[in-house]
Amino acid sequence: MTPEEFRRHGRQVVDWIADYLSTIEKHPVRAQVAPGQVRAMLPAHPPEHGEPYETVLADLDRVILPGITHWQHPDFFAYFPANASGPAILGELLSAGLGVQGMVWATSPACTELETVVVDWLAELLGLPERFRTDSAGGGVIQDSASSAALVAVLAALHRAGGGKVAADGIAGRYAIYVSSQTHSALEKAGRIAGIGARGVRVVDVDPETLEMDPGHLRTLLEADLAEGVVPALVCATIGTTSTTAVDPVRRIGEVCREHGVWLHVDAAYAGVAAICPELRWINDGVSEYADSYATNPHKWLLTNFDCGLLWVADRRPVVEALSILPEFLRNAASESGEVIDYRDWQIPLGRRFRALKLWSVIRWYGAEGLRAHLRTGIELARHFAGLVAADPDFEVREHHPFGLVCFRPARASDEETLALMERVNASGALYLSHTKVNGQVLLRMAIGAPATTADHVTAAWHTLRQAYGEP
Amino acid sequence: MTPEEFRRHGRQVVDWIADYLSTIEKHPVRAQVAPGQVRAMLPAHPPEHGEPYETVLADLDRVILPGITHWQHPDFFAYFPANASGPAILGELLSAGLGVQGMVWATSPACTELETVVVDWLAELLGLPERFRTDSAGGGVIQDSASSAALVAVLAALHRAGGGKVAADGIAGRYAIYVSSQTHSALEKAGRIAGIGARGVRVVDVDPETLEMDPGHLRTLLEADLAEGVVPALVCATIGTTSTTAVDPVRRIGEVCREHGVWLHVDAAYAGVAAICPELRWINDGVSEYADSYATNPHKWLLTNFDCGLLWVADRRPVVEALSILPEFLRNAASESGEVIDYRDWQIPLGRRFRALKLWSVIRWYGAEGLRAHLRTGIELARHFAGLVAADPDFEVREHHPFGLVCFRPARASDEETLALMERVNASGALYLSHTKVNGQVLLRMAIGAPATTADHVTAAWHTLRQAYGEP
Repeated sequence: MTPEEFRRHGRQVVDWIADYLSTIEKHPVRAQVAPGQVRAMLPAHPPEHGEPYETVLADLDRVILPGITHWQHPDFFAYFPANASGPAILGELLSAGLGVQGMVWATSPACTELETVVVDWLAELLGLPERFRTDSAGGGVIQDSASSAALVAVLAALHRAGGGKVAADGIAGRYAIYVSSQTHSALEKAGRIAGIGARGVRVVDVDPETLEMDPGHLRTLLEADLAEGVVPALVCATIGTTSTTAVDPVRRIGEVCREHGVWLHVDAAYAGVAAICPELRWINDGVSEYADSYATNPHKWLLTNFDCGLLWVADRRPVVEALSILPEFLRNAASESGEVIDYRDWQIPLGRRFRALKLWSVIRWYGAEGLRAHLRTGIELARHFAGLVAADPDFEVREHHPFGLVCFRPARASDEETLALMERVNASGALYLSHTKVNGQVLLRMAIGAPATTADHVTAAWHTLRQAYGEP
Repeated sequence: MTPEEFRRHGRQVVDWIADYLSTIEKHPVRAQVAPGQVRAMLPAHPPEHGEPYETVLADLDRVILPGITHWQHPDFFAYFPANASGPAILGELLSAGLGVQGMVWATSPACTELETVVVDWLAELLGLPERFRTDSAGGGVIQDSASSAALVAVLAALHRAGGGKVAADGIAGRYAIYVSSQTHSALEKAGRIAGIGARGVRVVDVDPETLEMDPGHLRTLLEADLAEGVVPALVCATIGTTSTTAVDPVRRIGEVCREHGVWLHVDAAYAGVAAICPELRWINDGVSEYADSYATNPHKWLLTNFDCGLLWVADRRPVVEALSILPEFLRNAASESGEVIDYRDWQIPLGRRFRALKLWSVIRWYGAEGLRAHLRTGIELARHFAGLVAADPDFEVREHHPFGLVCFRPARASDEETLALMERVNASGALYLSHTKVNGQVLLRMAIGAPATTADHVTAAWHTLRQAYGEP
């Protein structure tokens, strides 16, 4: 494809996306296809001859769109939001157009240095401590996701806990990491990948009401492990759990970690970005003093398309020691000078895209005030929805909803009835929400935060739900 | 940003990229900046107020471009190519515009099903065996890179070697994986991440001339480990090593693996795509019979921008068993029916982009014949370059260059002089190449394969090198 053909088809694709975004509400939120239906519409064999780009775009409408669940739809309330925005999409496009590799500084210096700047910008916006900034012993890096961020933290923590021998010797002896029943499954997955297995993952009790990790029980588990010769490697505290956005008491957890020299990872994948708003800065209480690593995902609630997960560490040395291998072909004068950062040593894969472009693009287009306005809209709409539910005697709503997620249920329904209600509205395509289980009981999760969602969408969603449940 | 603003700025960005690609040769190939220079031109603090998109594009020209090493430049011959192409960039743009999550089938069925189709298409184009197709016990999946593909293979292999207990119990006892000195460092990194450490990575001898792994020595190492109670988990054979594109004898290595029930992973990250050309199908000799997993990266040489790495496995069960965790919020009827694939269980992170769109876009635009033509051009240009070098008595060229990489050196230069020659031409910005070490001696690596590279570029590159070395 020549540059001029790219110009022509690029405009078609831009127009296609602009049209898609401006007419997204005409689609059912959840795809209405059965398993295998999309595949059956695609040729079983690859084409021998090239085709005009228009045929690809036509098939996008004909074959792909019916199989899409529309995450950018204003009535998408499932999981967490997956925010995209114009400047983020354009940043992604620029990254693809430049097509550079940022594995080491020397392979494209601007890729590394812009990343350094934007992760520092975001640390400043969030009020993260100085030791997470690039000009300290620590620093930030863009990962694909909070799962990978957690895995990197686990590997660095294991390496540190093992006296710097794990990278060379492997997992010899027994290590443990500590989570709660509310921690994201990514931590257990990280434990499995890192070789400590599910067996090395301890589940700390939570307060049955608030669902916050119990620091006292954490201490008990830690000390029991120490007594048996198991080495505690990492504790994961969560700011904004996936299930209900519970906020673990980071300060008190941090005190326990400090006593025993255990790595404290803070997984703020969804809610961490909320700290851009001063009135929500409380969520990070204790992070400054105690956190060894901190992760939050602009791709969830900060107007940036997936993938863009940020990880900061207070000490980059154990990360690099755990992950650095230098093959001959990557040796270069800049790396050897020690004056540059090679982010390949801060992540699982070697190759890396120029993802900083999209975060840069987003922060510059919206500015801090625009980002705050977006977050506050989500929170306000969540309050609005919670108010509608609370006013209905047939429903009950979970009081804790400091962010964009509201958990609720029909007050007298069985779990089966609650799930059936969810399936009915999801199948209708009118809106899409998800569920969780708290203390053995099913709750519905209404996750608000898409840029296109307004009060009208939220009100309409409530009426749809109310009607699907049955008139009062 | 409204859809109409996106339309306007989207066209600006498309034009910017088209202009960039059509004038790329006016830039020095390698960035001419010193460490810190880009960062110093960027504001230390994030903007409080949003800015017009034009200011972002202006800074792209003013601040970012001088710090870019241009991987799409026709005179970029370092590392391996990082192919982008118009349809790939547009596929990436569509993926960003749709902004869907493909973690499980239910979160966007078309994302999973198109991936299933295109990985099967590519398996067919490469002549990979039926057991790597989706309608078998195995299947293919798109990863970010061959590093992640290797890690997934190592985790599945460890899980299988440990009798299905590693995911639960962790690394208890000793495991080993087998590589050669020519294997990509990603395998040692995978070993470290998986908890077996560098200590669990055995280095098999290579033939000093061909640099191919020695199956006899592999057997010796395997049997020595078995005698000591170490469990062999995985052998990695490489088709097209990073250093010199050596091709390991997969068939003979596979026979050794089969004897001892060890997982054979084939890392064909760079060269694997060459099998689309029938005359290069020989590289996969033995894969059909013996490989448990196979990885190749369309983002290296198949006109697809990073990231797009493919992994096929002959048996998906150990992969899923090693990596699957099902939190409540991801439970859904489709997954429980067993009728769908949830690719989240085939990878490290949970979230995943709709990367199949770009591979689909590339294969449809070029067709199989277009892909073959691109590969053949790279090989032809490599032969052309090798001919130029071989005709010069002051230089010697490595005879093995079946793909796009040519290794060569000034015949009577010391390693320091060879590296100084490389640094001179790289610093000039006229072209960019890299180096390796073979049997202790530095060789220069000329990696040809960018879509914009022509015979004229290659000839000019040779003249620049020849002149920089000193006239004969």
